[in-house]
Amino acid sequence: MTTPAPLVGVVMGSDSDWPVMRLAAEALAEFGIPFEADVVSAHRMPEDMIAYGKRAHERGLRVIIAGAGGAAHLPGMLASVTPLPVIGVPVPLKTLDGMDSLLSIVQMPAGVPVATVSIGGARNAGLLAARILATGTDDLAADLRAQLLDFARDLRQVAADKGA
Amino acid sequence: MTTPAPLVGVVMGSDSDWPVMRLAAEALAEFGIPFEADVVSAHRMPEDMIAYGKRAHERGLRVIIAGAGGAAHLPGMLASVTPLPVIGVPVPLKTLDGMDSLLSIVQMPAGVPVATVSIGGARNAGLLAARILATGTDDLAADLRAQLLDFARDLRQVAADKGA
Amino acid sequence: MTTPAPLVGVVMGSDSDWPVMRLAAEALAEFGIPFEADVVSAHRMPEDMIAYGKRAHERGLRVIIAGAGGAAHLPGMLASVTPLPVIGVPVPLKTLDGMDSLLSIVQMPAGVPVATVSIGGARNAGLLAARILATGTDDLAADLRAQLLDFARDLRQVAADKGA
Amino acid sequence: MTTPAPLVGVVMGSDSDWPVMRLAAEALAEFGIPFEADVVSAHRMPEDMIAYGKRAHERGLRVIIAGAGGAAHLPGMLASVTPLPVIGVPVPLKTLDGMDSLLSIVQMPAGVPVATVSIGGARNAGLLAARILATGTDDLAADLRAQLLDFARDLRQVAADKGA
Amino acid sequence: MTTPAPLVGVVMGSDSDWPVMRLAAEALAEFGIPFEADVVSAHRMPEDMIAYGKRAHERGLRVIIAGAGGAAHLPGMLASVTPLPVIGVPVPLKTLDGMDSLLSIVQMPAGVPVATVSIGGARNAGLLAARILATGTDDLAADLRAQLLDFARDLRQVAADKGA
Amino acid sequence: MTTPAPLVGVVMGSDSDWPVMRLAAEALAEFGIPFEADVVSAHRMPEDMIAYGKRAHERGLRVIIAGAGGAAHLPGMLASVTPLPVIGVPVPLKTLDGMDSLLSIVQMPAGVPVATVSIGGARNAGLLAARILATGTDDLAADLRAQLLDFARDLRQVAADKGA
Amino acid sequence: MTTPAPLVGVVMGSDSDWPVMRLAAEALAEFGIPFEADVVSAHRMPEDMIAYGKRAHERGLRVIIAGAGGAAHLPGMLASVTPLPVIGVPVPLKTLDGMDSLLSIVQMPAGVPVATVSIGGARNAGLLAARILATGTDDLAADLRAQLLDFARDLRQVAADKGA
Amino acid sequence: MTTPAPLVGVVMGSDSDWPVMRLAAEALAEFGIPFEADVVSAHRMPEDMIAYGKRAHERGLRVIIAGAGGAAHLPGMLASVTPLPVIGVPVPLKTLDGMDSLLSIVQMPAGVPVATVSIGGARNAGLLAARILATGTDDLAADLRAQLLDFARDLRQVAADKGA
Repeated sequence: MTTPAPLVGVVMGSDSDWPVMRLAAEALAEFGIPFEADVVSAHRMPEDMIAYGKRAHERGLRVIIAGAGGAAHLPGMLASVTPLPVIGVPVPLKTLDGMDSLLSIVQMPAGVPVATVSIGGARNAGLLAARILATGTDDLAADLRAQLLDFARDLRQVAADKGA
Repeated sequence: MTTPAPLVGVVMGSDSDWPVMRLAAEALAEFGIPFEADVVSAHRMPEDMIAYGKRAHERGLRVIIAGAGGAAHLPGMLASVTPLPVIGVPVPLKTLDGMDSLLSIVQMPAGVPVATVSIGGARNAGLLAARILATGTDDLAADLRAQLLDFARDLRQVAADKGA
Repeated sequence: MTTPAPLVGVVMGSDSDWPVMRLAAEALAEFGIPFEADVVSAHRMPEDMIAYGKRAHERGLRVIIAGAGGAAHLPGMLASVTPLPVIGVPVPLKTLDGMDSLLSIVQMPAGVPVATVSIGGARNAGLLAARILATGTDDLAADLRAQLLDFARDLRQVAADKGA
Repeated sequence: MTTPAPLVGVVMGSDSDWPVMRLAAEALAEFGIPFEADVVSAHRMPEDMIAYGKRAHERGLRVIIAGAGGAAHLPGMLASVTPLPVIGVPVPLKTLDGMDSLLSIVQMPAGVPVATVSIGGARNAGLLAARILATGTDDLAADLRAQLLDFARDLRQVAADKGA
Repeated sequence: MTTPAPLVGVVMGSDSDWPVMRLAAEALAEFGIPFEADVVSAHRMPEDMIAYGKRAHERGLRVIIAGAGGAAHLPGMLASVTPLPVIGVPVPLKTLDGMDSLLSIVQMPAGVPVATVSIGGARNAGLLAARILATGTDDLAADLRAQLLDFARDLRQVAADKGA
Repeated sequence: MTTPAPLVGVVMGSDSDWPVMRLAAEALAEFGIPFEADVVSAHRMPEDMIAYGKRAHERGLRVIIAGAGGAAHLPGMLASVTPLPVIGVPVPLKTLDGMDSLLSIVQMPAGVPVATVSIGGARNAGLLAARILATGTDDLAADLRAQLLDFARDLRQVAADKGA
Repeated sequence: MTTPAPLVGVVMGSDSDWPVMRLAAEALAEFGIPFEADVVSAHRMPEDMIAYGKRAHERGLRVIIAGAGGAAHLPGMLASVTPLPVIGVPVPLKTLDGMDSLLSIVQMPAGVPVATVSIGGARNAGLLAARILATGTDDLAADLRAQLLDFARDLRQVAADKGA
Repeated sequence: MTTPAPLVGVVMGSDSDWPVMRLAAEALAEFGIPFEADVVSAHRMPEDMIAYGKRAHERGLRVIIAGAGGAAHLPGMLASVTPLPVIGVPVPLKTLDGMDSLLSIVQMPAGVPVATVSIGGARNAGLLAARILATGTDDLAADLRAQLLDFARDLRQVAADKGA
């Protein structure tokens, strides 16, 4: 499930997070942003995870999207070893409705930020990655900015059409 | 409290949020990122707020940092009218310890992401803006990437020095 | 789903809120109060939403009922651009049981009130609109007051009949 | 602390609620709305409370504002015996930051609405009463509508002046 | 569903509470305690409810068990008009898992106690009524005390039998 | 701090609970109910605690009031070894505002009820004990019933006097 | 469901906890650690429970795993009568998603620790027991240490295999 | 603040955690258990942290006590790289009363347990380490077991002396 020359890494703590995290992948695909998707567990593969984070910017990744549930350490740990912006997706598990996931991801100490989206909000993680890449000065950024303005226009139109 | 040619807009719902939000400004200043800071209340200046959001990317802003408390609508409303990444800072008020601010900011619907940081975590909002600007391909980005790697190194050193 | 010369505007952030919000419409219909119902998303149609709010009292609306879920900004944003009383209905989404919706709606800052009802409590939103319109000095108000007293009597009778 | 020919009744469960509830009274006074203020405890004066509620609309009151804390039953119980709109103010007590007060007030069953404002949000309760009275067709309503538009304008100006 | 000469009144805010509240009735029946069961809604029948509470001890009731959900005011309001001990049962509704019901019942102000049991814990409400009646000096009390000791013995035996 | 021939045992997990629990003692004293007060820690004196509970009814106690904080096991454990009604007082500790104490006390399994009062609500625990003893058929009960009716009357008067 | 010469006692408040608690038993079995499993209810068998706890270390048990739900007192009470490490498993019940169970178990007062694992986390309780027994200086400890290192290796491999 | 030949490593995410974590050190000292204390931040020194965890059992440590606040990843990350039992201490920060710290530590996924103690419960972390070391078969274990029985006796005596 990878694409050549990925700009965004979509990682998750467990393959059981994929039904949530695929929405991030779909959003990236809609915007034509090449990405890779992988299982990188903070707790079961801690050293692989550190290695993934440390090498991410060297491999050409520009944004990391990380989803995890419960005591969700993956986004914060990646953020601690990469200079890239890390977007955290709190995945809800069987109990607590994702409140544990949310707090474990968002309440990072000063120095190591994680850009947290809503519980289960993987689609927004993909869209946020697009916004981030659109802040640049290259052609990709210009293209994404144009796409984002179109996207907002479409969003409005669909919503408006649902009214009277 | 503005700087020439700002790249980041730091806005807040009320000037009472400034003691929290100034930490974002300080982090930006540490990284040499020009920014502007302003009060833009979603509830008391809704049209100014919409106008601010709509024009932000045209004025050259590349990231918006928005702080608000309680029913904190500023970050999400700005995100709905700008293609820029919006970083939301939940400001804690007198009751509920910022849990209302956090949920009002982070739980955005699919389509309109807000990059939420921790309750009161304005310093991390500034650092996240630096990481976002560092994803680009221009000289600023290269400079910020280098700074961010230094920053992480210093962070480690200070922490390590506190141990035995 | 509109009625001629509406006095109450029933709006919601998404058509997926309709199964909840229709209870408001039904309550208004029971009291013979003309209303309109529409999708007006704060996040996907921010400018339409502002326009809706600003013109509401000029178009003859006297009360607005607004339902939304998650980071529910619609009621508060409408309240910021209209002098009309805005009744907010927290719609529960997939996680958190509507607690995020409730706090996003009820915790408004001083200056911009939202009359919040219970999570999913759209029927009460309709009844509250009836009570509000009944505070007037016109014939409609007199009629609604009489209806409300009958309504309370019926409510009591139905409850009493369920006992021994 | 009463005024002749009151249109709004401001009641509270205990005189210890007054430091919060006086903000409702002040808002009403700013708009020139005559009101009365009284202690009417649901738990210590249940029959007086019922009598107060039942007679309120007969005495010319058009809106009731009720504040209470903890297991806060006053707003809901008044709403059950009056056709008037009842605005509930959750007063925070020593523990739980007013979350108990909020839930006890807002989570009313279908049939008996309470217009709930934020925890400690008595000023907004007063402003909401002004909005409600402004929905009418009499001179008072017209005057209040004009005042509310001015009020919003001032609110904006004060906020805007705090920015650059 | 009443018994002659009831000693305990089992009341609930709505007949939809009966599936929970019947467990209280069953526990009373097991101990041979005569009781009555009725719908007495605080919000839909406020005056009947006050009347029920005021007359309860005159009619020979010695304990009241009251169940309600959401903004659950029935137990506390009954406690405010009766000298009898009132046992409150928080009934969980569709959202919030009964946390609103629990706080609305248990957080009573000083002066008016409600003996609160667990969320949905109607069986324990019945058992608590048995313990209360067993504190007396009459034959009934002596009989109940003996039954309660047997009951605890059986409880232990059943649990012990489930182990190895 | 004991009285001859106590009818109520006031126990607490730690002497640091006394500033809260003394309100129970004061309420009992106001009603002339003899009581004893003691530290009986579930966790530090488990066997003494079991012994206290088992012998309580044999020593003539008719009600137990137990206060504890955090993982507050004292009320529930006493309830498991005595046929007496046990009133639980959740004592708030340094964090969580007593929510942990409340849930640890109130959420008892079917079979072993604890009559839980509000967080820090020791005065109500004393008043509830008075109501329980007043359910009897002896002279004490008759006297307490009369006192409770007077008490409610005074409560009303004091509250009413605080109004206009 | 016992094994000869058990080193770990797996106990639970009710046999309805077994579907959760069997995961602890399975983990112990995987590591070849002899254990016993039993129902030992704090509330229904308080004296048996105390006896179980007091004799546990004399019978050769070296770790106790105790699961319970709601007002979950079993782990803490056992910890108060044994010098053995007690691992607490919060079992989620019908409401509150195990938050009551978690707080009742983890918030123990200073002096009596309980090693708490996640809500429903019985498998981790078994693994923690293995880690504890592996701290020793005997052959069993050496064997368990080796197994734990293998276990971590396998865990990594399975996770890694799930990625690309 | 280290001791020769430490058996327990006491680590914390920041030196600001020391006022809480020193209670763990004191408890260990009371039992004569050699320990080391250090700042090992998961987020600021991720690789040092991994290295610390990986080498801990090789250096002779037998238990790790780790305290952290907010998005508290230190205990869980250490647990993922060591076969030693890791005791997690949730340190409360400025907001949320340690609920974020607790959930971030206790809600670990299956496979990687953390033995979590109460919010701020560092003293219990030290005592739990003593209980764990006492499960062994060496002289230290025998000595600790004896000490733990004495400790429980003293705890009881002090509590009992506080009663009448």
